[in-house]
Amino acid sequence: MAIENHDVAKNLAALLGPRGYTEDQSLIAPWLTDWRGRYTGRAWAMVSPADTQQVSALVALCAAHRIALVPQGGNSGMVAGATPDDSGDALLLSMRRMDMIAIDRIDEGLVLCGAGVILQSLHAALAEHGRRFPLTLGGKGSATVGGLISTNAGGTQVLRHGTMRALVAGLEAVWPDGTVLDGTAALKKDNRGYDLQQLLIGAEGTLGVVTRAALRTVPALIDRSVAWIGVPSPHAAYRLLRFLADRSGGGLEGFEIMPHAAVAATIDHLPGARWPLSAPHPWHVLAEWVQDVADAAAPAVTAQTLLADAFAAGLANDAVLSSSEAQASAFWQIRDLISQAERAHGPALQHDISVPAGRMADFITEACARVEARFVGVLALAFGHLGDGNVHFHVRAPQAVPADHDRFEQASAHAAAERWYREDGNAISALVYDMVEEYGGSISAEHGIGQAKAAELSRRGPPARLQAMARIKQALDPDGIMNPGKILLA
Amino acid sequence: MAIENHDVAKNLAALLGPRGYTEDQSLIAPWLTDWRGRYTGRAWAMVSPADTQQVSALVALCAAHRIALVPQGGNSGMVAGATPDDSGDALLLSMRRMDMIAIDRIDEGLVLCGAGVILQSLHAALAEHGRRFPLTLGGKGSATVGGLISTNAGGTQVLRHGTMRALVAGLEAVWPDGTVLDGTAALKKDNRGYDLQQLLIGAEGTLGVVTRAALRTVPALIDRSVAWIGVPSPHAAYRLLRFLADRSGGGLEGFEIMPHAAVAATIDHLPGARWPLSAPHPWHVLAEWVQDVADAAAPAVTAQTLLADAFAAGLANDAVLSSSEAQASAFWQIRDLISQAERAHGPALQHDISVPAGRMADFITEACARVEARFVGVLALAFGHLGDGNVHFHVRAPQAVPADHDRFEQASAHAAAERWYREDGNAISALVYDMVEEYGGSISAEHGIGQAKAAELSRRGPPARLQAMARIKQALDPDGIMNPGKILLA
Repeated sequence: MAIENHDVAKNLAALLGPRGYTEDQSLIAPWLTDWRGRYTGRAWAMVSPADTQQVSALVALCAAHRIALVPQGGNSGMVAGATPDDSGDALLLSMRRMDMIAIDRIDEGLVLCGAGVILQSLHAALAEHGRRFPLTLGGKGSATVGGLISTNAGGTQVLRHGTMRALVAGLEAVWPDGTVLDGTAALKKDNRGYDLQQLLIGAEGTLGVVTRAALRTVPALIDRSVAWIGVPSPHAAYRLLRFLADRSGGGLEGFEIMPHAAVAATIDHLPGARWPLSAPHPWHVLAEWVQDVADAAAPAVTAQTLLADAFAAGLANDAVLSSSEAQASAFWQIRDLISQAERAHGPALQHDISVPAGRMADFITEACARVEARFVGVLALAFGHLGDGNVHFHVRAPQAVPADHDRFEQASAHAAAERWYREDGNAISALVYDMVEEYGGSISAEHGIGQAKAAELSRRGPPARLQAMARIKQALDPDGIMNPGKILLA
Repeated sequence: MAIENHDVAKNLAALLGPRGYTEDQSLIAPWLTDWRGRYTGRAWAMVSPADTQQVSALVALCAAHRIALVPQGGNSGMVAGATPDDSGDALLLSMRRMDMIAIDRIDEGLVLCGAGVILQSLHAALAEHGRRFPLTLGGKGSATVGGLISTNAGGTQVLRHGTMRALVAGLEAVWPDGTVLDGTAALKKDNRGYDLQQLLIGAEGTLGVVTRAALRTVPALIDRSVAWIGVPSPHAAYRLLRFLADRSGGGLEGFEIMPHAAVAATIDHLPGARWPLSAPHPWHVLAEWVQDVADAAAPAVTAQTLLADAFAAGLANDAVLSSSEAQASAFWQIRDLISQAERAHGPALQHDISVPAGRMADFITEACARVEARFVGVLALAFGHLGDGNVHFHVRAPQAVPADHDRFEQASAHAAAERWYREDGNAISALVYDMVEEYGGSISAEHGIGQAKAAELSRRGPPARLQAMARIKQALDPDGIMNPGKILLA
């Protein structure tokens, strides 16, 4: 701790009490490394406020002494946006104690959450009231509402319900000077000037700390139908998506694509897993229709009929519809474990990218071909949210580069993997991002920028965007105390 | 024109050509008074750029010479947000020439519009392609896409489709320094930092000029059912709304409430109009269900059944369902002409306010009672979008104050009306806005702030909001050239 911070430490300890303040590095250490294990930072203390008033007071104190704050929820972000730098100058601001859930506005479809509420707890609390929060993701057991808001999280239900941005009805945040913006009234219409709440969503804690939010909920599900469909190409998958979306009256909630190799690797990796379709197909689609309480009175057109129509229209090679919830889960498990199976297989690069939805099929076809042509032996695998124009574009190292988890040759495998990341990896990523730029897309579709992509964003601009962002940051956080080094390079 | 602007004028004329530049005050004058006729300003010239490049060049030129610009679309806003001040120092920036509509991304559900596209033209263009833009309002024959975006317009379909904010998939704008932010790729997922597009929506041209936008469309309608329902109170109306919304599977698109006196005045005013229900009711509800192309395959639960259920549950006193499109239109006409009938009746104050949707029935009941108790003889009428927590809270002058349009006694009537506005009007508005504040609501739900409410906003804050807005304005428009005096007082 810098010597001048001793007084501040005393004040913080008094303000927050023993549960809210610690300098014990054994308690802080687990929170200093990011989810992917690529960044580790330092913090001279960790503060864990219990309510908004405490957040306001501690931020004001830090502002007065120009002490940097790194807000953190579940620490399960993908871009090290909640990891401090290694100077040790920052305070780690854990929001996890603010885990209150209030159901008292459920008649308006709203639930009020503290920033520290864990996504899975929110799902459970709403289920008891016949409602659901239509956003989920792999890290649901750790991801917090504040983190989901600050990273504008996505997932597999964006097709129907939008990203977090569309699901926040109102939020409360503490500005970098300690004042409180209270939007939890969650007005559906409010045209009193600039939408400051939207500005804070996706700002990764660099403009203020999200403390509470009123979230939109939807009726609980009573049933779902999940189809596994074989198609010849990404273009065929896109045509199928349009066909199904136009006829599903809003009930199509998920539409994921996967190339054959990704599915094969996952089924190999997963004990007891079976191919959903007997014959092989170049590409696979996972489509989900849901029926909720509000739909119950309306016997919606069945997934069965839609699939039959799609088949008749020549839009699907083969398809199977889940006949039970267990089978539906088994289909989704294959999709959900693609990344895990890939890690077991060997080194791979991951790119979370988007392009205009109507151009994604072109992008996948062209980008896979170009990457594989230029880097002999690699395998390009694009999978994910076709309807959102968002895929995870992964590139597997050539077979010659061993998996770095191999327990007999761990050290040499690790070194070979590192060499590949360094020598070819950066060039491959540059090629992928160049193509994303050609297609008018984004180098971060749903994971954010954090530390991991800040340099890439700074390089690629565009300047009219970066400059406005830098001006806003400077205006709202002139001393740069809020999560420094994230999104914008210092 | 200030003498130092002569060179600028020459450059602008050369840049924009004869169709794009005029100093002819007879051509400019019609655009210098706001829609409600309350504000008139001056401008030394009117510029009408043909494309984004011209907007960029002219804004850069103005920035270099610190010349104020007042962007304007259809000049049909309700708060004088597009009317210059009376200094004559500003240029009027008409966006009406930029009226291009491109349908080439309709497979993604998108339409690309210039800022000058008139809402009614957009509706017509989309109808030819089996799509619709689900936002409409009284000024649709003049309101432009740029104006709708800059004021975050609402209307009667917000219940289902949201305000303009939810309908903009991507936008292009020129910053106050002339650089261009291009978001027309309309990525569904893009987490590269702050959402600058959302910041520009509702900013009333004070942070930049919106030049183009990619808008979301929905399938064209194939049918609609409109019900007129008699209910005992706003609370009963709200219970009915929740009942219907929970059972309509998304198909409930409109839900408006009207007090008896407002309906009676409108039916009196409208030649040939008839009461939809034979018996009188304290409050009336207009509910609309729509069926679009995508719903066609799914025989949705009928409005008839829902109404019967509502009746059985004791949620409606009486109801009639439109049996033809003509009858549906006749129902809507009564709702749409409330304000016009009111003007014919006599002086009235209008407040466009919102509170949390679940508290609106309380608010209406309490606010009407308090206003009528304190100001003897006035009539408080709250009508509009109950499901959005947004009503138009109008207060009619006592009968003794004559209509100011009376052609036999125009001068004295006008004077009496002015006296009432001055003496009681301000006190009534203060009481209404105080109550809105108590309820955690907004003094501008859908019309914006412009000039008309800038002083009120400045008085009522809250400071944590005003200060952040002022900082952002200062950061992005340091010389204050973009629509000065709107939203924030200088």
